[in-house]
Amino acid sequence: MARRRTTDPSELFVLAQGGDRAATARLLSFIEDGGQIAREIGKLAFDAGGAAVTVGITGAPGAGKSTLTSCLVSTMRGEGINVGVLAIDPSSPFTGGAILGDRVRMGDHALDDGVFIRSMATRGHLGGLAQATPEAIRLLDAIGFPWVLVETVGVGQVEVEIAGAADTTLVVVNPGWGDAVQANKAGLMEIADIFVINKADRSGVAETRRDLDQMLDMGSRGIDGDWRPPIVPTIAAEGEGAEELWAAVKRHQQHAISSGERAERRRRRLDAELVRMAGVLVQERAQRVQGSNAYEQLREEVERRALDPWTAAERLLDDSRS
Amino acid sequence: MARRRTTDPSELFVLAQGGDRAATARLLSFIEDGGQIAREIGKLAFDAGGAAVTVGITGAPGAGKSTLTSCLVSTMRGEGINVGVLAIDPSSPFTGGAILGDRVRMGDHALDDGVFIRSMATRGHLGGLAQATPEAIRLLDAIGFPWVLVETVGVGQVEVEIAGAADTTLVVVNPGWGDAVQANKAGLMEIADIFVINKADRSGVAETRRDLDQMLDMGSRGIDGDWRPPIVPTIAAEGEGAEELWAAVKRHQQHAISSGERAERRRRRLDAELVRMAGVLVQERAQRVQGSNAYEQLREEVERRALDPWTAAERLLDDSRS
Repeated sequence: MARRRTTDPSELFVLAQGGDRAATARLLSFIEDGGQIAREIGKLAFDAGGAAVTVGITGAPGAGKSTLTSCLVSTMRGEGINVGVLAIDPSSPFTGGAILGDRVRMGDHALDDGVFIRSMATRGHLGGLAQATPEAIRLLDAIGFPWVLVETVGVGQVEVEIAGAADTTLVVVNPGWGDAVQANKAGLMEIADIFVINKADRSGVAETRRDLDQMLDMGSRGIDGDWRPPIVPTIAAEGEGAEELWAAVKRHQQHAISSGERAERRRRRLDAELVRMAGVLVQERAQRVQGSNAYEQLREEVERRALDPWTAAERLLDDSRS
Repeated sequence: MARRRTTDPSELFVLAQGGDRAATARLLSFIEDGGQIAREIGKLAFDAGGAAVTVGITGAPGAGKSTLTSCLVSTMRGEGINVGVLAIDPSSPFTGGAILGDRVRMGDHALDDGVFIRSMATRGHLGGLAQATPEAIRLLDAIGFPWVLVETVGVGQVEVEIAGAADTTLVVVNPGWGDAVQANKAGLMEIADIFVINKADRSGVAETRRDLDQMLDMGSRGIDGDWRPPIVPTIAAEGEGAEELWAAVKRHQQHAISSGERAERRRRRLDAELVRMAGVLVQERAQRVQGSNAYEQLREEVERRALDPWTAAERLLDDSRS
């Protein structure tokens, strides 16, 4: 127990690959912090990784996403599949205990080396969650988790985008009028590959299914036209429907692979990620320039409204190149 | 009614300054779309604007933020103050009708030229809501709204950041154990200048106040150390507490001005905005490069894992400079 704790990314990475969970946790913290060390880890993971399949799980707070995630993990473990879980949801019980009496027991998986669960947060560093999440996925991929479930709250621009960037995206709703409409407003209809009606022991399942079907008929869904998102009812708190859901995920992946949709989606994702990374690199340089006298003058000009912010940003950009 | 509809930003801007609400709506749509036209509008607005005072209103979905916003607007209108409202919350009734039987009636303000209400959304363009919101604030400022209320859902990295970037930030909670704890988890404790316990006719107000006080005592709040966020109970649905809340907002502004905190906060906000703008400019250029053959080759190298994404992003950045 008195073992020296290394902070060297390469050493930690080797330990993580050997199954050292503390090392993995450490690496994920570095990734959350962003910056140069995060990038080093990103490179190590990329070199070692395959290309993990990612499943996004999203929906309104209280929809039962965490319970559903836990169920899905159990089902996948039943087939011997190693699963990583990233929870990006401040209301998730994974993020600090079952405060509200939630019945989730991730303790079910706590002693299982085939599962790694992590709640992610970033303290507003450049790139934030949008940047840190794909890096965390690559790390889990590289150390032996070929499937990564990413739970995000279905509210919030970044959070919805992250869930929508998965290979298969599950949108979780509950029975009851209005819920499907809310999903539409939040942009969740467009990113769903599979709809889950969780808490299907409550009344209103048929109506919710009908609402979802109607919205699907209206066709707000642009991409991958020949896949109609199936609607899977579940009672996650009792483990019901998890087998059917896992079957639907596999069916969607088979479809996405054979139609070329998965490769195309990953290509678009890479395009977007490279653009975002270029933005992060430039922003880091711009922040360094902000310590200078030249920048103080620039800011003063904006403050006395002699210079508009966009023109100032262009000058900041030029300054950060030299 | 057969009037020609202009799409020229400068013409629209003059119309908006003259009180043409359709022109204002049009300009805000351009701002949501982002890109070059949004920047033109941003420059026009910056030149004409003073420096509107912004009030961020955030909290969990269902906390009653929209009703509270509506109350606050009524109180401010009672003093003859012009108010703009930006609602960045897909669950807000401002964003498409009172679906869930909400008692908010923004109809109260619909015929009042001293109020402009807009729900904001962006379709994932570069910079997104983080970029569009300050531009929209500047526009409202420039056309005659010296106070702008920004309602965001208190879930989601970008949404919490936007609310926290206001001159005064209200965090709305409800009575009941766990709510204050949730606020802490979501990072809302740190950004609150004023806490509102809305729905204060329910039981548990004293406990919630105690929880908030305890968290404030623990001092997760780093900045502006000599302002302790007051806790204001309201029953927004019945208009109760709005006067006290408005008084607290004014008190906070007086404090922030005299302590220098407001100027300092605006300076930090400008620094962050310029960095973000520089990032957006670079990302736009990088996207244009992505059409080229050189980029296709770069992407292929990443796809066959001959090149890691960060190195690829650096090359993309170099290419987008030429």
